[in-house]
Amino acid sequence: MEEIITLDYGSGGKKTSRLIEQYIVPAFDNSALSELGDGALLPGADELAFSTDSFVVSPLFFPGGDIGKLAVCGTVNDVAMCGAEPKFLSCALILEEGLPVETLERVLQSMRRAASDAGVQIVTGDTKVVEKGRGDGLYINTSGIGFRKYRLPGLAAVRPGDAVLVSGTVGDHGTAVMLARSGMMDGELRSDCTALNRLTDAMLSSGAGIRILRDPTRGGLATTLNEFTEGRSFGIELEESAVPVRPEVRAACDMLGLDPMYCANEGKLICICASEDAEALLETMRAFPEGRDAALIGRVTDDAHGRVALRTGLGGRRILQKLAGAQLPRIC
Amino acid sequence: MEEIITLDYGSGGKKTSRLIEQYIVPAFDNSALSELGDGALLPGADELAFSTDSFVVSPLFFPGGDIGKLAVCGTVNDVAMCGAEPKFLSCALILEEGLPVETLERVLQSMRRAASDAGVQIVTGDTKVVEKGRGDGLYINTSGIGFRKYRLPGLAAVRPGDAVLVSGTVGDHGTAVMLARSGMMDGELRSDCTALNRLTDAMLSSGAGIRILRDPTRGGLATTLNEFTEGRSFGIELEESAVPVRPEVRAACDMLGLDPMYCANEGKLICICASEDAEALLETMRAFPEGRDAALIGRVTDDAHGRVALRTGLGGRRILQKLAGAQLPRIC
Repeated sequence: MEEIITLDYGSGGKKTSRLIEQYIVPAFDNSALSELGDGALLPGADELAFSTDSFVVSPLFFPGGDIGKLAVCGTVNDVAMCGAEPKFLSCALILEEGLPVETLERVLQSMRRAASDAGVQIVTGDTKVVEKGRGDGLYINTSGIGFRKYRLPGLAAVRPGDAVLVSGTVGDHGTAVMLARSGMMDGELRSDCTALNRLTDAMLSSGAGIRILRDPTRGGLATTLNEFTEGRSFGIELEESAVPVRPEVRAACDMLGLDPMYCANEGKLICICASEDAEALLETMRAFPEGRDAALIGRVTDDAHGRVALRTGLGGRRILQKLAGAQLPRIC
Repeated sequence: MEEIITLDYGSGGKKTSRLIEQYIVPAFDNSALSELGDGALLPGADELAFSTDSFVVSPLFFPGGDIGKLAVCGTVNDVAMCGAEPKFLSCALILEEGLPVETLERVLQSMRRAASDAGVQIVTGDTKVVEKGRGDGLYINTSGIGFRKYRLPGLAAVRPGDAVLVSGTVGDHGTAVMLARSGMMDGELRSDCTALNRLTDAMLSSGAGIRILRDPTRGGLATTLNEFTEGRSFGIELEESAVPVRPEVRAACDMLGLDPMYCANEGKLICICASEDAEALLETMRAFPEGRDAALIGRVTDDAHGRVALRTGLGGRRILQKLAGAQLPRIC
């Protein structure tokens, strides 16, 4: 049977990985891509970091953000996770015929504010228009260039006993978008969409033994941790009670049948660091509004099968797989 | 009445300019953007050139190319026109649910070949999936980074008497795509889609007094020349008989009611250079397959109204405006 693209391929989970690993990386065969981070340090020009992201979120506006803010913060964060200082963004718009110009203006103003807040400049752009029905109002691609400021040793430096930190509550973005899409409104629940480059700069300049940083967007915390352990000779064990989840996110997840561990975040990072530096690093993180709820959520284990396990409140142990299928399509 | 986006806004002509000048540039207010080239030399890092382009061409495959080849060559060319050497590309895919994986593979292989031919590396990427009906099979964004190799003086250096050169026949891409879309096939008519970075490198290293280079894509030759003269105190006069147009392109234009001067090109460049260097530069260009049909097509005039005029075979004189409306939607 002819294989076709389904929404699962865009979930950020297993199918997305398969698409990328089986088709895209082999096609473009080069070492920068095969590391599969969200940004690349450039071969032969490794003072530069380069990242790209397209945004197709529906609805365009949601509590806590909109597609424009998301497009700026998402790419800023991907560059920042490389240990680079994000400086320049491109902005490529695919507009659907019939989009009110006023909607476009609101999105552009939001991009401008987000870029200004993050200290980056939008320096080049492109605009295409597709027929009514061939888009979804507005798709945005941003690509970002940053200058490398820190050298992160990466997954090869991760050791059993290392600490796993998260910069705050998980699942806020995914659930906020899903509620907005369903037309249900919750005054409390907002996307966490924000730029993390000031936080990463403070963390990396603190001298803590940071191995790797990653923002757990599509596929959520559980999927990103699985990307870390996949094919490695270490595992990760999380303490369920230590993972910060807002009560309103938990309630929304219960209602929608979602798991906050798999819900997208757009203003959070995961950090693996040397155990002895964890407490001081958490203090550094908590000094920022975007790191206020930072927490130590688990440890690296010597599990040779690279499993991510969750120790539950009742003393049980559950294996967290990568997201399979599309829990939340079109959330970024 | 509420203003909405129409297909005209994507034509590359007057409406596109208005959208960009009225809404996008003011929103992102910065000097790099307001120069409105297709690539940016980065403020404070001007050894770098950065460009972005989204591709929404329909159909995905057409004689002489496909959306993948177009996405690589288009961004390579935008970087090359800045006087930079294109080095790194990103590749962001928006896939429509239902796209055959085999189609994606063909496009990716085409991108790989085009990147290899142009000497650039695809180093970072992103993949999103939208619901069936919300895309058109496949949209691709490529962004490109290049290292500045030459300093082009730009429009401020243009003087009356300067020569206007084109690297070959005009209108090939636009007419090939329109014929493919209409289902009519013409064995002869092919898109000119190709990378021009080797040609620009040879031209710029020749020492000729080159003022500016630009690839006349959407909106064609007439629109790009109008972008040069707009708000300037010089005009351009073209000799109609000197503008190279393939007989099959002319025939297709007659049939489709198009004007080759406004049809998109994807493997051509326009160059304004010092008059005394024009002949030697044409020789340099003609040594490349992509510059084989290079021609001197006109001169810069001292027209204070910045008009682009065409001297016709019969001795008449016609003013060429920017493209108004959408002669050819979705051609790149």
